[in-house]
Amino acid sequence: MTTKQANPIRIGVVGYGNLGRGVENAVAKNPDMVVAGIYTRRDPAQLKPLFEGTPVFSMADLDSHADRIDVLVLCGGSKDDLPVQSLALAAKFCIVDSFDTHARIPEHFAAVDAAAQAGQTTALISAGWDPGMFSINRIMGEALLPDGATYTFWGKGLSQGHSDAIRRIPGVAGGVQYTIPVEAAVEAVRSGTRPALTTRQKHERHCYVVLAEGADAETVRQAIVTMPHYFDEYDTTVNFISAEELKEQHSAMPHGGFVIRSGNTTEQNKQVIEYRLQLDSNPEFTSSVLVAYARAVHRMKQCGMTGAKTVFDVAPGWLSPKSAEQLRKEAL
Amino acid sequence: MTTKQANPIRIGVVGYGNLGRGVENAVAKNPDMVVAGIYTRRDPAQLKPLFEGTPVFSMADLDSHADRIDVLVLCGGSKDDLPVQSLALAAKFCIVDSFDTHARIPEHFAAVDAAAQAGQTTALISAGWDPGMFSINRIMGEALLPDGATYTFWGKGLSQGHSDAIRRIPGVAGGVQYTIPVEAAVEAVRSGTRPALTTRQKHERHCYVVLAEGADAETVRQAIVTMPHYFDEYDTTVNFISAEELKEQHSAMPHGGFVIRSGNTTEQNKQVIEYRLQLDSNPEFTSSVLVAYARAVHRMKQCGMTGAKTVFDVAPGWLSPKSAEQLRKEAL
Repeated sequence: MTTKQANPIRIGVVGYGNLGRGVENAVAKNPDMVVAGIYTRRDPAQLKPLFEGTPVFSMADLDSHADRIDVLVLCGGSKDDLPVQSLALAAKFCIVDSFDTHARIPEHFAAVDAAAQAGQTTALISAGWDPGMFSINRIMGEALLPDGATYTFWGKGLSQGHSDAIRRIPGVAGGVQYTIPVEAAVEAVRSGTRPALTTRQKHERHCYVVLAEGADAETVRQAIVTMPHYFDEYDTTVNFISAEELKEQHSAMPHGGFVIRSGNTTEQNKQVIEYRLQLDSNPEFTSSVLVAYARAVHRMKQCGMTGAKTVFDVAPGWLSPKSAEQLRKEAL
Repeated sequence: MTTKQANPIRIGVVGYGNLGRGVENAVAKNPDMVVAGIYTRRDPAQLKPLFEGTPVFSMADLDSHADRIDVLVLCGGSKDDLPVQSLALAAKFCIVDSFDTHARIPEHFAAVDAAAQAGQTTALISAGWDPGMFSINRIMGEALLPDGATYTFWGKGLSQGHSDAIRRIPGVAGGVQYTIPVEAAVEAVRSGTRPALTTRQKHERHCYVVLAEGADAETVRQAIVTMPHYFDEYDTTVNFISAEELKEQHSAMPHGGFVIRSGNTTEQNKQVIEYRLQLDSNPEFTSSVLVAYARAVHRMKQCGMTGAKTVFDVAPGWLSPKSAEQLRKEAL
């Protein structure tokens, strides 16, 4: 852990799964921040933080801890936790969440904005890498090259949603799914020719499945590859493996992908902008993004910029611990 | 040219070389902007704009045109033009410049800031891709992965400075120089191992040279490859070609490069962020960036955010012609 500066930004971590552990880790790497507390719905005495000395509290304590915390990082899920927690907590705390149900972002924003406006807090929603870094690159690419096309590829990466879908199939004892961008499609996009690509042409899906005792492999394979929305529109390969191999070879959570904007500035001149992430750990990277945005939220609150915000509202300099002067000198 | 919206942002173009033409082109692709005028030190009657109907004025007219212009895009050089023009014009106009002498950015910022504060204008300096997009990716990479290393590679691209250096050598009738990133170095960086790389290991320099009549090829080659700062620290290859080949094969101005941040979120997990540009035309892309930042400058001025700014101060959403609501709905 790095040595802490004086008056560090005090981060509260709400929820302690993969994302919460990632936040504890990320804060440890930032000298201008400390974890003021992990807040859990479990029994705090049973929760073992990564670093000795990180305080653990019950969620019920949060209400009386407003003066101990500068920014809460919400580490719950988008389905059940954040729609409730983000607005409840934004009424009293500055928050960052990673709400990632794309279609419901406008309503989530409106609800959190009302709470944050009422409480005069700063509440940044939907941080992470997609939504998040990828979103920024989509809108900047479009702004820089208005005559162009934007492509997003995901992977190679473990998809939690698709892995869950596999595991719900009768006869499946365990399994994971990797989303793989099709290299030929990525190359076509990089060439700047703006190809029209079908879903099938952009990504493949690779499944590693452990069969339940007595289950028929071909029946399971068919159930997977024909599953509507999840697999039917893709070229899907299913590999059957042992429970041991699943545990040993497929416990990591790699992910990543590309946002590519290609466009023309004149008829003869193509320009290609590519943003790429290669992540050994999806949740650890997402947590690192949340923590950097917690710094920005703290600054925005200090400048009186309250209400709900997204990554689109955050100037790059606000993410850095360095002063604007130092950034201009060193990094411009 | 796209159909223009009502009340477009009125752009003044100061200087009409490659960059100025690029700005005229880029504005044509943005429906929320028009070129209010090109301002030249030459005889305006002799200057032929790309689009019929683009007004051309003398630089001397600028002083009386303050009410016709929302943002001036300065298209002069960093050595002689911008140090004088940016501060003179920021006193009266909102401006964007592409000042790219990295070491002198702090003093340029201070001088322009004083002028802009006095005139209550918004003046964004050092926009483009490096400084500019690459700078943003350097500071964001560092903020997201504090335990890491940042690498910038340039090319494949035509370097104006190195081409000029070649052309000053006795016996050289013409020539260009391409900077080429060494693929093995890029791959090593992408692997996340944070290699220590020497100047020689990162880039090669490829020269295409036309000899003057009677000049000795080996003498010229030696003069190039041993030139201090420009070539001596690099593996440089010199190819002698005809004047015709130089004109036909080497008149374009491609450029680009990579900013790669690799870091660890935990000991076992590496994360790699890569931003890449592949540009058929360096000046046309730079102009497109300047025009997007002109939009941001206009908005910042309307919000009362005056003084000197850099790309670090500009939230991504301000670059887009779309509303914050539309961006959240479509791109987050």
